[in-house]
Amino acid sequence: MNAAAAHDKRVRLGVVGLGRLGKRHAENLAYRVPGAELVAACSPLEEERAWARGTLPSPRLYDDYAKLLDDSEVDAVWLVTPSSLHAQQIVDALRAGKHVFCEKPLSLDLAECERVLAEAARFPHLQATIGFMRRFDPSYKDAFDKIAAGAIGRPFLVRSQTTDKNDTDGFFVRFAATSGGIFLDCTVHDIDVARWLLGKPRATRVFAAGAVALHEGLREFGDVDNGVAICEFEGGKLAMFYASRTQAHGNDTHSEVIGTAGALAVGRNPRANRVEIYDASGIRNECTPSFFDRFEDAFLHEARAFVAAVQGGAGSEAQAGATLADALEATRIGNALRQSLQSGQAVTL
Amino acid sequence: MNAAAAHDKRVRLGVVGLGRLGKRHAENLAYRVPGAELVAACSPLEEERAWARGTLPSPRLYDDYAKLLDDSEVDAVWLVTPSSLHAQQIVDALRAGKHVFCEKPLSLDLAECERVLAEAARFPHLQATIGFMRRFDPSYKDAFDKIAAGAIGRPFLVRSQTTDKNDTDGFFVRFAATSGGIFLDCTVHDIDVARWLLGKPRATRVFAAGAVALHEGLREFGDVDNGVAICEFEGGKLAMFYASRTQAHGNDTHSEVIGTAGALAVGRNPRANRVEIYDASGIRNECTPSFFDRFEDAFLHEARAFVAAVQGGAGSEAQAGATLADALEATRIGNALRQSLQSGQAVTL
Amino acid sequence: MNAAAAHDKRVRLGVVGLGRLGKRHAENLAYRVPGAELVAACSPLEEERAWARGTLPSPRLYDDYAKLLDDSEVDAVWLVTPSSLHAQQIVDALRAGKHVFCEKPLSLDLAECERVLAEAARFPHLQATIGFMRRFDPSYKDAFDKIAAGAIGRPFLVRSQTTDKNDTDGFFVRFAATSGGIFLDCTVHDIDVARWLLGKPRATRVFAAGAVALHEGLREFGDVDNGVAICEFEGGKLAMFYASRTQAHGNDTHSEVIGTAGALAVGRNPRANRVEIYDASGIRNECTPSFFDRFEDAFLHEARAFVAAVQGGAGSEAQAGATLADALEATRIGNALRQSLQSGQAVTL
Amino acid sequence: MNAAAAHDKRVRLGVVGLGRLGKRHAENLAYRVPGAELVAACSPLEEERAWARGTLPSPRLYDDYAKLLDDSEVDAVWLVTPSSLHAQQIVDALRAGKHVFCEKPLSLDLAECERVLAEAARFPHLQATIGFMRRFDPSYKDAFDKIAAGAIGRPFLVRSQTTDKNDTDGFFVRFAATSGGIFLDCTVHDIDVARWLLGKPRATRVFAAGAVALHEGLREFGDVDNGVAICEFEGGKLAMFYASRTQAHGNDTHSEVIGTAGALAVGRNPRANRVEIYDASGIRNECTPSFFDRFEDAFLHEARAFVAAVQGGAGSEAQAGATLADALEATRIGNALRQSLQSGQAVTL
Repeated sequence: MNAAAAHDKRVRLGVVGLGRLGKRHAENLAYRVPGAELVAACSPLEEERAWARGTLPSPRLYDDYAKLLDDSEVDAVWLVTPSSLHAQQIVDALRAGKHVFCEKPLSLDLAECERVLAEAARFPHLQATIGFMRRFDPSYKDAFDKIAAGAIGRPFLVRSQTTDKNDTDGFFVRFAATSGGIFLDCTVHDIDVARWLLGKPRATRVFAAGAVALHEGLREFGDVDNGVAICEFEGGKLAMFYASRTQAHGNDTHSEVIGTAGALAVGRNPRANRVEIYDASGIRNECTPSFFDRFEDAFLHEARAFVAAVQGGAGSEAQAGATLADALEATRIGNALRQSLQSGQAVTL
Repeated sequence: MNAAAAHDKRVRLGVVGLGRLGKRHAENLAYRVPGAELVAACSPLEEERAWARGTLPSPRLYDDYAKLLDDSEVDAVWLVTPSSLHAQQIVDALRAGKHVFCEKPLSLDLAECERVLAEAARFPHLQATIGFMRRFDPSYKDAFDKIAAGAIGRPFLVRSQTTDKNDTDGFFVRFAATSGGIFLDCTVHDIDVARWLLGKPRATRVFAAGAVALHEGLREFGDVDNGVAICEFEGGKLAMFYASRTQAHGNDTHSEVIGTAGALAVGRNPRANRVEIYDASGIRNECTPSFFDRFEDAFLHEARAFVAAVQGGAGSEAQAGATLADALEATRIGNALRQSLQSGQAVTL
Repeated sequence: MNAAAAHDKRVRLGVVGLGRLGKRHAENLAYRVPGAELVAACSPLEEERAWARGTLPSPRLYDDYAKLLDDSEVDAVWLVTPSSLHAQQIVDALRAGKHVFCEKPLSLDLAECERVLAEAARFPHLQATIGFMRRFDPSYKDAFDKIAAGAIGRPFLVRSQTTDKNDTDGFFVRFAATSGGIFLDCTVHDIDVARWLLGKPRATRVFAAGAVALHEGLREFGDVDNGVAICEFEGGKLAMFYASRTQAHGNDTHSEVIGTAGALAVGRNPRANRVEIYDASGIRNECTPSFFDRFEDAFLHEARAFVAAVQGGAGSEAQAGATLADALEATRIGNALRQSLQSGQAVTL
Repeated sequence: MNAAAAHDKRVRLGVVGLGRLGKRHAENLAYRVPGAELVAACSPLEEERAWARGTLPSPRLYDDYAKLLDDSEVDAVWLVTPSSLHAQQIVDALRAGKHVFCEKPLSLDLAECERVLAEAARFPHLQATIGFMRRFDPSYKDAFDKIAAGAIGRPFLVRSQTTDKNDTDGFFVRFAATSGGIFLDCTVHDIDVARWLLGKPRATRVFAAGAVALHEGLREFGDVDNGVAICEFEGGKLAMFYASRTQAHGNDTHSEVIGTAGALAVGRNPRANRVEIYDASGIRNECTPSFFDRFEDAFLHEARAFVAAVQGGAGSEAQAGATLADALEATRIGNALRQSLQSGQAVTL
């Protein structure tokens, strides 16, 4: 940790929420981010705090978010809490004078997103970043850089998908009441990717449709397990999205960006690793089973970029995280997709 | 040609239209289709008839379609003529007692399609097939067979694209007034593929959008050089389409079909052949430059299937060609896509 | 067939040997080679002649090779007979004034190869080609052309393999007494490819080794079911070979050629077609099950090239077939590999 | 770093040698290996010590290896020094009571290897590992595990290559006098991979050949810039090796292992990342430019495994490192390859 050069500006972090993803973030912040010091962790569950006690480097442990915010030796909070808490927790953190990183989404409610932006405007010296980690995946980053360098001319179309391996346990069915539906839960990542790779154009119109392939329980929530969508942006730019909960082969998250002089595909064929298997079934590769496997590196780079940004660094990583405004736009478009799915009509933004 | 077994039922064909694609069909019928005999060819252009004289096995040459229909030794006509002539030429062929194969589209006009169907109903003993050659590509055919065998469970989503290498000459811009636009000219193939692979469900709603990436001349025709679309079918089935005139890497025609237990991709990465090149730019393969290169085999299998069907064979190939009813549906959906593109609204069918 | 332009020089062929591969050649010559006319066929087996009667366009049928050679209306013979007959049959054909195409190998016996070459030198006006069909595969041909155009600088190393799907029936074990062993039966193709792609350098030294992975019955013949070899050529050029009878995934015949400025791989991943399968096992493609499937096109192009050569054409295809001298070199190197396998020592040529 | 659970057994390391690779190891040990504490670093160069001072977490810095060995708070040394020093430095470390990790090779001299093994036998409680990092690459590890699980039946053939991007600067030419030649410098990794994946069979015979493609300066050292080799093992197992200094596309390190029921390929197509580029040259991916890029993860896992082994852990990683005996075998085989290259004869071991 503590490289001499970074010592003076060491960033002291408190992680909030220690579920599966929270644990991963906590370990990254504790052991793999130069300049970071994980000094506190918060969870209402004793079981999770016990994990922190055994695994992390002696953090102060809290069972209540307010107490963590009172800890004056915490410079920044890292929120991995339920989505419905994000907006207020961000506001509370900023008011407590702390930088804040929050997992996506900012909020499923557009008015609430706007309220957070208004509040954050009062604290321009504090970092406030929403975790669209795909921007930090080395391959997505390489695509972004190649586009910036003109490799494909003017980009005008993004096709992007987030598709999960079918979960026979049906976790997401139970989660359907609060997830916001497939577009706000999954496609929101693709929306952010599209805006990011196309130069942040304003969305003007969307259309969405969907199917229930396997999980009939979704119907009562007006949700689907496979969704498709088109998004039109100003300036004649376009995006196509696909989200699925029912893939057989794994988590298959990939994107393409098509320009006037070429195209880039990122992550097509979600290879689990560099092994190919030759047997009676042909030649194959195994696939990344989950987004954890696919984006392990991205979560790490994301944490490094946030810490660098807090330290005042101005490198490219430091500037690449999604802002609150980006997150608001993702919610705005995701909401419109849900509305289109339910109405069967195109929705103008 | 003339295998003994097939001799009695030899099919005598006349090809009509000897442009680039017509020439290819003519050579296939002349030299590579067991049971076929190319006995006549028709073109209004002396240049094309001269080509036929020098290349084909002594066909009778006509400069007028009516004369070819009068030739009593022609059993079947093979139409590779301008789209606007298709409907009437099919009707004329049937009335002259001849089987007919016609390149797509049947017609861009729905009423005209219906008129041809009504007329064809009077000649049930005559074959009338529209040339959606993709059904005869060995890889598409393999995917169809695998789906039929249950390899991917119940198929519910097709993603399919027809994208051409950018033609700086802009042929299709000059052609825009009569092509019907990108969806009726290109996507019509993907529509047929989607219906074919999904079990011919009825389309219920479509939405389309587009962009002019390079060819500004299209705007005056209400056309685009890149189009995207969603099509909903009854029974919760879906299709997504992409069509482009502006690809840098080649003709990239591929399709995916996603089912409840797996997925198939056909033609992803349109490899020109089996060569990979290792050099300072990385590792690469060249791509099929045009649909001629990509579907060379398909055109041949298509011709064999038609001849087999005329001979009364009942093999699987004989039954796989697109019927007039299939062609009508493709036009119906294609027209709705064009309407959606121009209105910005979803269109209910 | 019989295009007007080619009519005067139509080549009348007689095919000799109607086993599995002979049938394929016969059908190509009968129906798919412009300028060719298959007028005769020869087999000692009534069953094979019956097949010819039913399938081919009325050829004259012979049960004896000498009778076919007496047929003055045969311009060229096409030998698909047991390897041990090749040398004498070629000599007989030439003495009868007929062009001759013969499947590989020329002979497993070097002295016999030399005798054929000496005899052939007396008939310079007659074509005599040995069937190394890989030269006519479109992808191998493309690699050859790219090398000639300088795409990889100076080529200096070829790695090439011929590996068959495991045949549990063990045909090749029963065939081991006369096959010449794995190097003369399989690797001989790779030897020809290496010489062809490297500019026909003279081999100077070889080393070979092998393993019996599954077919213990080979041991009594001093043969193996997996063999590896190195061949050194003059001018510092090299080749590595691998041959196998025991692959699980299919016939995997591929080659690489490495040059001072790049490399080409031909046929790596022997895709059966353009379909990819996504399921619980990952993402896979099926493989070509046999060399028939892999080289279907090559056999056809080979036949066209031979006919064109007989017709006196000077196109590139006409010149690409393996000469008797090429075949002699392949046998010389193959014999040295066998000798090295058995002695455990490098063999100097 | 210092997870509570691991605190008592924290391993205090001193890194020796701070060249390019040494720096990478030092950063891994300092910041990314749970249970490790980098407490000391040694380099004769002030410039490298200055780097350590600025980058590493306050290590004690030495300009002399003997002084570092005198540091009683160093539990283990990590040697990234010139190859010719390895053997004696390992012996000195063991005599000083310290665990030792040493970059490959143990020694180019077989007698020296044996001397180290004899000495190490006196210190069975100390870890002594040679850095064949490929064993720790996640994909190689996955292949190893799949083989152990029987996925390909009995493995009997390994094909493995180490090929570097051409270095126009010719560093390795200047290094040729002491590198041991291409087989001892590069192929030694493939030798270790082959032994590891085949179950550590004893090598019985080798043959090697080579070419100077670009770097004529190698000739005076009896070295080549492209080398090929075959290695026979007892029990009918085989390996083929290829090493090159002159690739155009990047560092292409890959291996295949072929068994009686299938095969695995590891790292074929050395993709730099998950991006594919579609442009006028076709579809391509960029390649890993150097072994640093290819094996970044492996170096990290290697360090973790060593520290875990010192801590007494018995996990699979802890046991996977190459022993001194493995390293001796790699040198024995590499020396035989060099001897074969120079004599043109097979060499029996």
